[in-house]
Amino acid sequence: MGRLTGTTVAFVTSMSGIEDAELAVPWSVVRDEGGTPVLVAPELGEVATVEHGCDPVATYPVGRLLHGVVALEFDALVLPGGTVNGDRLRILPAARELVRGFTEAGKPVAAICHAPWVLIDAGVAPGKTLTSAPSVGTDLRNAGATWVDAEVFVDRAGGWTLVTSRGPDDLPAFCTMLVDVVAEAAGQ
Amino acid sequence: MGRLTGTTVAFVTSMSGIEDAELAVPWSVVRDEGGTPVLVAPELGEVATVEHGCDPVATYPVGRLLHGVVALEFDALVLPGGTVNGDRLRILPAARELVRGFTEAGKPVAAICHAPWVLIDAGVAPGKTLTSAPSVGTDLRNAGATWVDAEVFVDRAGGWTLVTSRGPDDLPAFCTMLVDVVAEAAGQ
Repeated sequence: MGRLTGTTVAFVTSMSGIEDAELAVPWSVVRDEGGTPVLVAPELGEVATVEHGCDPVATYPVGRLLHGVVALEFDALVLPGGTVNGDRLRILPAARELVRGFTEAGKPVAAICHAPWVLIDAGVAPGKTLTSAPSVGTDLRNAGATWVDAEVFVDRAGGWTLVTSRGPDDLPAFCTMLVDVVAEAAGQ
Repeated sequence: MGRLTGTTVAFVTSMSGIEDAELAVPWSVVRDEGGTPVLVAPELGEVATVEHGCDPVATYPVGRLLHGVVALEFDALVLPGGTVNGDRLRILPAARELVRGFTEAGKPVAAICHAPWVLIDAGVAPGKTLTSAPSVGTDLRNAGATWVDAEVFVDRAGGWTLVTSRGPDDLPAFCTMLVDVVAEAAGQ
């Protein structure tokens, strides 16, 4: 029995430009701990991942359509990074609404690298303390968040837990905290 | 004799992720009008362009090192877009300083698509009215700028002229205004 047995975790991305390790590594950790990861994206088919910004790496099958899911179906939300991915996801109203669904339900959200842009457009950044890719730090501060330079940061302001990291090198710490907060929220 | 004869225009980019048309089209227009375009980047060698976010298109030779130039050498600054390009350029102190060199000297700046992120980090966005890729609009508003949805916008607040457009489809209007403001600034 893993620590996430019985939990379902939504991984929400756009269709491309996703930083491969930031999708694949937390996905494996959730599955290895007995949880069920579900890839949620705006279109059916496959999403395409990259490394170093734009170099192609792999494709992964979409599990559920973004427009067809609600936060109530999941125990937690993971937002992988990738510059183009974060930039595309933030402008989708369905992505913004889904993020607010998790925060309003008090469910954990984990965002890494360029994914915190989505938190800005969802309107949930003000009052939170978090980290991200350094380039996104300016935008987070201007949106009313407090930005810190740390491999992982856990913030519980406003009644919901946010786990953030700066990028791929921080994945070990990110995944450790992701498992902790999801297990805690699920009472496991 | 073109309208930009005798002028020198800096095109400043990172090393990759540059939206090809947003570099190549204004570059050709400046050259065709008799101006001298110069590609300024953080490293020597070639920069790599893309389309649709991450699809490779072409490479172009770097003309000058970003750390070795000052605004006084040029008549105007063009910042091409590309999501990864804008994201990488904004974190470079030399890019921020060069942008401020142009604005403090009252020289024209033209930025398209995701390039206005660089204006945020240079600290020159507050009080300006501009357009950009829609995703960057939130960050510009949060930085103190007024964002408009237009194919091209020319703003003269604060003693320097800023030309902005949303993306590749707006290039004809962007280039027309670019030539107008550079010719005007050069007294031609």
